[in-house]
Amino acid sequence: MRKVTFGGAPSLDGYFARKDDAVDWLMWSKEAATIMSDYWKTIDTIVMGRKTYEAGLKMSKGKDNLYSGMKTYVFSRTLKPHKQGNLEVVSGDAVQFMKRLKKADGKDICVMGGGDLARSLFDAGLIDEIGFNIHPVLLGSGIPLFHEMKRQINLELLECKRFQNGCVYVSYRVKPTKVRRSRK
Amino acid sequence: MRKVTFGGAPSLDGYFARKDDAVDWLMWSKEAATIMSDYWKTIDTIVMGRKTYEAGLKMSKGKDNLYSGMKTYVFSRTLKPHKQGNLEVVSGDAVQFMKRLKKADGKDICVMGGGDLARSLFDAGLIDEIGFNIHPVLLGSGIPLFHEMKRQINLELLECKRFQNGCVYVSYRVKPTKVRRSRK
Repeated sequence: MRKVTFGGAPSLDGYFARKDDAVDWLMWSKEAATIMSDYWKTIDTIVMGRKTYEAGLKMSKGKDNLYSGMKTYVFSRTLKPHKQGNLEVVSGDAVQFMKRLKKADGKDICVMGGGDLARSLFDAGLIDEIGFNIHPVLLGSGIPLFHEMKRQINLELLECKRFQNGCVYVSYRVKPTKVRRSRK
Repeated sequence: MRKVTFGGAPSLDGYFARKDDAVDWLMWSKEAATIMSDYWKTIDTIVMGRKTYEAGLKMSKGKDNLYSGMKTYVFSRTLKPHKQGNLEVVSGDAVQFMKRLKKADGKDICVMGGGDLARSLFDAGLIDEIGFNIHPVLLGSGIPLFHEMKRQINLELLECKRFQNGCVYVSYRVKPTKVRRSRK
C-alpha cells in the first residue's frame, strides 16, 4: 500500500492560507527545502481539493503544470472532469478514488492543502502520516488546516525539528484505532 | 510591566478540550510537570473566562480553590461579580481590567484556556508570550484554542522541546507590530 501523507505549512493558529488564499507569510528556509527535497523523491502523486488547486493556479499565474513531474489529482464537484498532461480533475467520490489509488502501483502520495479533502480522508482512515512546518505567526483568520471530524485520530510523533527561522517541523504517524478497524 | 503568558495543552488540530469540556486525552509527563513547576514560581495570578472556570470546577467536582495560592480572576458577563478567598469574578471589560493588572505590582500572569478571552487580549496587544504543550492527537472537534482575530500576530520561537511521550512543547514571544503601536 502506498503511504499517504497530509503535508502543509500552517500558522500556529491552524491556517494554511489567508482568506484570499495568500501565502505571503510563508518563510523560506534551507532546512525546510532539504526536508521537502528528500520527501519529493518518495512520492509521484499529489492529490488536492479544487480550492487548493485554484489557489495554486492563482499563485503561479495560471501556469498549469504546477507540480511538474508529479501525477496530480484535483477532486472537485464543480469542475468538469478532464485530463491535461499530468493533471487530472476527478469528479467522483474522493474516498473511493483514494482507496484505489493507495492500492495501485507507484510511489507514495501527498495530500496538499485543503482541510476539506483531508477531513474525508482522515475519517475514512486513508491518511498514514502528517508533516507540518508550523510557522511562528498567528494569522488571526484564513483557510483552516483542519475541519471538524467525526472521530479522534491518535498520532505518534516521528520527528520534531526546530528551524533557525523559528519554524517547527513536526511529523506524525497516524495510529490505527479501534473505531477505524470496526468500520472496515 | 508584568508578563502575560497564554498557556495551554492543545491537540494538534487546535482544541484544548472536547465539546463536553473533557480533557481525558491529556498526557502526563515528568518533562511537562517540570516546566509547569518552574513556570508556576514566576506567576502569582491566573486569569480565565467563565467557560474555562466552569470546566475546571466540573473537573475538580466543585472544589472552589482550584489554583491554590494563586490570585484567580474569572471574566464573565453572566456570573454575579464576587470575591471568595483568592477567587474574584469580574464582570467588567476584560481588556481594561488586564491593562490595570499588568501595571500593578506582582509576579507574572497566566491566561488559561478560553480562546474567547485570549482573542480580546491578543487584539489589545496584552499577551507577551505563548506556551503550548502540543499533544499528538487530532480530537476532531472540541473547544478551540484560537478564535478569529482582527489582525496578524507575529511570533518569535523561544523554545521547542520534544517530550518522550510524543508531546511537543513550544514557547513564543509575541513581537510588537506596527498595528499594535498605532492603536495605542
